[in-house]
Amino acid sequence: MDLRFMARALELAKLGKGCVLTNPCVGAVVVRNGEIIGEGWHKAFGDRHAEINAFDSANNSLMGSDLYVTLEPCCHTGKTPPCTEAIIQAGIARVFVGMIDPSMKVNGGGIEFLRSHGVQVFVCEDLELVRSIRSLNQEFVKNSILGLPYVVMKAAVTLDGKIATASGESKYITGEAARNDAHLERSYCDAVLVGAGTVRNDNPTLASFGELSDKNLLRIVVGGCADLDLNLNFFRDGNFLYFVKEINGKEYLYEEIGGRVLKFANWLDILKQIYDFSVGSVYVEGGASVFGSLFDENLGNGELIDKVLWYVSPKIIGGNGLSVIGGNGVDKLSDSVFLSDVSVSTIGSDVKICGYLNFR
Amino acid sequence: MDLRFMARALELAKLGKGCVLTNPCVGAVVVRNGEIIGEGWHKAFGDRHAEINAFDSANNSLMGSDLYVTLEPCCHTGKTPPCTEAIIQAGIARVFVGMIDPSMKVNGGGIEFLRSHGVQVFVCEDLELVRSIRSLNQEFVKNSILGLPYVVMKAAVTLDGKIATASGESKYITGEAARNDAHLERSYCDAVLVGAGTVRNDNPTLASFGELSDKNLLRIVVGGCADLDLNLNFFRDGNFLYFVKEINGKEYLYEEIGGRVLKFANWLDILKQIYDFSVGSVYVEGGASVFGSLFDENLGNGELIDKVLWYVSPKIIGGNGLSVIGGNGVDKLSDSVFLSDVSVSTIGSDVKICGYLNFR
Repeated sequence: MDLRFMARALELAKLGKGCVLTNPCVGAVVVRNGEIIGEGWHKAFGDRHAEINAFDSANNSLMGSDLYVTLEPCCHTGKTPPCTEAIIQAGIARVFVGMIDPSMKVNGGGIEFLRSHGVQVFVCEDLELVRSIRSLNQEFVKNSILGLPYVVMKAAVTLDGKIATASGESKYITGEAARNDAHLERSYCDAVLVGAGTVRNDNPTLASFGELSDKNLLRIVVGGCADLDLNLNFFRDGNFLYFVKEINGKEYLYEEIGGRVLKFANWLDILKQIYDFSVGSVYVEGGASVFGSLFDENLGNGELIDKVLWYVSPKIIGGNGLSVIGGNGVDKLSDSVFLSDVSVSTIGSDVKICGYLNFR
Repeated sequence: MDLRFMARALELAKLGKGCVLTNPCVGAVVVRNGEIIGEGWHKAFGDRHAEINAFDSANNSLMGSDLYVTLEPCCHTGKTPPCTEAIIQAGIARVFVGMIDPSMKVNGGGIEFLRSHGVQVFVCEDLELVRSIRSLNQEFVKNSILGLPYVVMKAAVTLDGKIATASGESKYITGEAARNDAHLERSYCDAVLVGAGTVRNDNPTLASFGELSDKNLLRIVVGGCADLDLNLNFFRDGNFLYFVKEINGKEYLYEEIGGRVLKFANWLDILKQIYDFSVGSVYVEGGASVFGSLFDENLGNGELIDKVLWYVSPKIIGGNGLSVIGGNGVDKLSDSVFLSDVSVSTIGSDVKICGYLNFR
């Protein structure tokens, strides 16, 4: 396997980041006599797959060529026909696969099908490349294995872990550069989730940002019962879900403008329901009670939170400020939740700390 | 002024870091015909000054030479005779000064005396060098101007700003590398201060570390009244101060082993008393109530905390864990305490964030 071509396929795959929803990001290149003759990537949910785009871009016969593709080709008919058949029809001789598709419908079936039709298939064994490919599709991997959306817990805190003063002032803990970065990270997700208190007190727009500012993120609020003011930014269009503990008869108000009001039992239940709305990843922005209940339930479940994105402002609020994570927390230090693959950077005057719990 | 020589004098000055107590770190070089003929630095409190050490190291007559010294030469008799007279006696032609001595006894007087005796004196105007020289002596600057020790507030916290779980477990929040780094930072100070709760619950040794591990730091505890167990590590020798709110008659127990028990009214009072024991810098290690009361009083005073040293472990404890800063805190976000000159680095798996409030 010529790793340069797989690296190029990964570059192409990245072009789909934030645009393919519950589909994975996939890139593909067609190589003949050591030269790339076709390139493609998966551009949007339900759209043609990377392999097919690469085939179409080739200005030559594909017969006897090599295909480098970051993800195992699909062998089932979803929104598009199976890629394995297109590969065989095109006369591709060898297929180099970045990672095996973890989804139940494929999961090695694509490779098996190709091999049984005389195509040579090789799976990438370069750890660094495999890790990068997997990392690009961490959301898809969790979706495929657990049927749950990928969950990013994002907070902006002071050095002493506060997100608001005692009087409730919270705008803004971090500087503009960090806020913009956080909004860009939000835009890579499919949905953004906050507690009813945050919607009521901060009236956030929860919009996307930068190069993805056209993306209308699905907005999700979690509360006790449906009692939020319809004039809040949150309800500016029907692209929202409202999770409530109790039905109080006012649900129709929110459904009239196109949103959905849904009952929930716990966070696992919320996430399962969200996934049914084709949401591959959720950006959870707090406040403290949402973080607290999600964190506490994750202690028992372990599959709820995947990524933690922390913006730390070098300031101190002190004693009676609002701590970022409500709920109960752990009793033993060994039960505290450790992040892995931690990265640290500075953005403006703030510090960005990013780490992972489950899927990376 | 040849900045290379001032930079060399600064290098020499740094060799005294952590060893000169309430004296400043000072370095000096003697230059003749563009060549260094003598070097020296201030090595210990009360010991000979940098200029004299530089003169003694010269294997040549000093007549007509240049002296580069990081701090304005003293013009008073303290533990040693005034350096200004030694400079004149040696026949130094020109003196290049890194920074003016901010202490009341000197504060330009040394320069004035030299000039009135025909020595040319120049003060460094290279901002970067001046900043480094001043930064090396931030403790001395505060001591000289305010008559208070320099205060470093150091904490090891989780991402959510906790220093212990709900059950009180706190060993250890950060990893070994970060703890060693914190102990080295502690060793650069003259004294280490903790609350009675920390002494009682954690039984810390509060020792120095690494290259400075021979240094027996003055240990300071702040509590309600003198009621700590004498078998605790804190009382292993008499090198301690015990600040109490109330005298309860048991003070003699602590004074029998050589320590001192002192009454205090507030933090300013504590710091003034500490300074009277020739303590130039205090490393405050918590716990939460010490941090809280110090932080709250600093909101009104503004001159108590100088440096904040934060070790952040990428883990989460959650809701009922102990927040790092107790007390009341601020109501308005604009009143929160911002750090300046913030630096961020990773140590092992932890993040070190360092910033300044007053003296830098």
